[in-house]
Amino acid sequence: MSGIAEVARRAGVSKATASRALTGHGYVAPDTRARVEQAAHELGYVASSSASSLVTGRTHTVALVVPRVGRWYFGEIIEGIERSLMQLGYDLTLYVAEPDSRDRDRLYRHFLARKRFDGVIAVALEPDDSDLERLVGFAKPTVCIGNELPGVVTLGIDNVAIGRMITQHLLALGHTRIAFLGATPNDDPPARDVDDRESGYVQAMRAANLEPTVHAAALTITDGYAAATPVLADTDSRPTAIVGACDEVAIGAIIAAQRLGIAVPSQLSVIGVDGHDYAEMFALTTVEQDPCNQGERAVAMLMSMIDGAPVVGRTTAPARMVMRASTTTPAPTPA
Amino acid sequence: MSGIAEVARRAGVSKATASRALTGHGYVAPDTRARVEQAAHELGYVASSSASSLVTGRTHTVALVVPRVGRWYFGEIIEGIERSLMQLGYDLTLYVAEPDSRDRDRLYRHFLARKRFDGVIAVALEPDDSDLERLVGFAKPTVCIGNELPGVVTLGIDNVAIGRMITQHLLALGHTRIAFLGATPNDDPPARDVDDRESGYVQAMRAANLEPTVHAAALTITDGYAAATPVLADTDSRPTAIVGACDEVAIGAIIAAQRLGIAVPSQLSVIGVDGHDYAEMFALTTVEQDPCNQGERAVAMLMSMIDGAPVVGRTTAPARMVMRASTTTPAPTPA
Repeated sequence: MSGIAEVARRAGVSKATASRALTGHGYVAPDTRARVEQAAHELGYVASSSASSLVTGRTHTVALVVPRVGRWYFGEIIEGIERSLMQLGYDLTLYVAEPDSRDRDRLYRHFLARKRFDGVIAVALEPDDSDLERLVGFAKPTVCIGNELPGVVTLGIDNVAIGRMITQHLLALGHTRIAFLGATPNDDPPARDVDDRESGYVQAMRAANLEPTVHAAALTITDGYAAATPVLADTDSRPTAIVGACDEVAIGAIIAAQRLGIAVPSQLSVIGVDGHDYAEMFALTTVEQDPCNQGERAVAMLMSMIDGAPVVGRTTAPARMVMRASTTTPAPTPA
Repeated sequence: MSGIAEVARRAGVSKATASRALTGHGYVAPDTRARVEQAAHELGYVASSSASSLVTGRTHTVALVVPRVGRWYFGEIIEGIERSLMQLGYDLTLYVAEPDSRDRDRLYRHFLARKRFDGVIAVALEPDDSDLERLVGFAKPTVCIGNELPGVVTLGIDNVAIGRMITQHLLALGHTRIAFLGATPNDDPPARDVDDRESGYVQAMRAANLEPTVHAAALTITDGYAAATPVLADTDSRPTAIVGACDEVAIGAIIAAQRLGIAVPSQLSVIGVDGHDYAEMFALTTVEQDPCNQGERAVAMLMSMIDGAPVVGRTTAPARMVMRASTTTPAPTPA
């Protein structure tokens, strides 16, 4: 079997560079990495991860904790993280468990406790989760995507500001009967990101001397549809505009309106948050975030921490409003 | 630090049982496992995976290869696999790479070549993928979810039979102008599951002496919508029924019909395949499969193989037709 020296010679690089390229430890230009990998492949050389782990104490593995996979937001984050890690030669160990669940508990006690990772990325933790304390207790580099959390490096959008912004957009168009759809249902675990968007909505409504109206819905198109239907069916109290807690809920409201024969936007304006794949198809005005890019940035931040560099506590991820056809001025009230 | 003997004593089980419960190697009743884990937790005992790996040669890790995360089908499979592995004390290493991509190539050369896993589950491989040969070359237990593949243990639904069945349903209702929507676009990599559904459709049409009409679309709601719009807008050639290659495409067709003012089902019947989360909201008649359960079954099959038991080459996963309101008899042709 060939050694690293032969791989380096064939690729025309130093042994140190060849080693960096194959272990994913430290920076190597993409072209150089490709050349080294090609040389290693031709020579049948495979870096022995257990041997290199014994020397470096590194596992070249990142653990990722998500509450679920099936929502657009989580899927995008997972793809962004996995793509970045693949470029760096790192493995991704995926743990899926809802907050406060028995599986989440086992995850900390049994899986993460084995510490078979160099760092952790956790998505959508809550500030008062017992998770947080346990995670910090592992004393491994940790980045959380989502809300700001005490004592942890976090990355995410400013949900309060966004909730305020989308409500102000509807106020500026002349709406006064604006409802928020997608508050966390009572039986569900708390969700700070949605609570923050709701807070932004409430702030904007109060600042305009209007009474906020909040309806609960889980964050899916189906639940948004189910929750919007009775709200829109009641002709006496029907709002002229809906702030969706996320695009899925907003799209559910648009589908409910279509079923009830309520025209969007002439009879009902709808706005969301996310930049979901389906937003364009439903002509949804929304605030786009880029969770795939957040995953990539989280990996970059985590790698800095693994390499011992300081990382700032909170990074606000960019978001931008995209105007489409689902919002307009309210229809004149019948006299 | 406490040893396994103390854990076993505290949990009231044998050392062998305690070890099985903590390593995930071999069967332990869920209650017993919980008791052993509780005892281990109270005593601060963590199974040393590297020590146990040195003895058993096992990594207690399963590698999962998927083309992407963001589609419902893949998300469900990932959740089913992860849930099962968590119960067994196994880690899941996730690899996301499109077939025939540079990432897929790196995946085999660099990541899987390290063999940091006891077995592999791969989803949606094609029979002529070079992947397949490489995967078999690792000589590790392997289960593929999707089509039948030469020389590999596979699990999946019978796509030809399902394509035939949904077409026959529309024929039995009296439709003759039935189009298939969702054939693989020319630029996309081949997809045997969709090709098989299309074959079933073509067989059923030919058996009824009808000419098949096939339209390409990628397997998303957005692409189904975009592909259906021109097909439905042409009043001369418009079909009275659409067979969607999957529920996403079928839902895209329903949304396109709504936009064009074509009533479903009185003017257009639509049928799909999958049992997507949104099928009920769109009242879609479909054939349900359960990819989450397929993930769980794939894990069970893989564990048997890891334990040296023989596993049958092809397992057909169950699927059942669910009638909803999107299909009915065709409207009488104007005289």
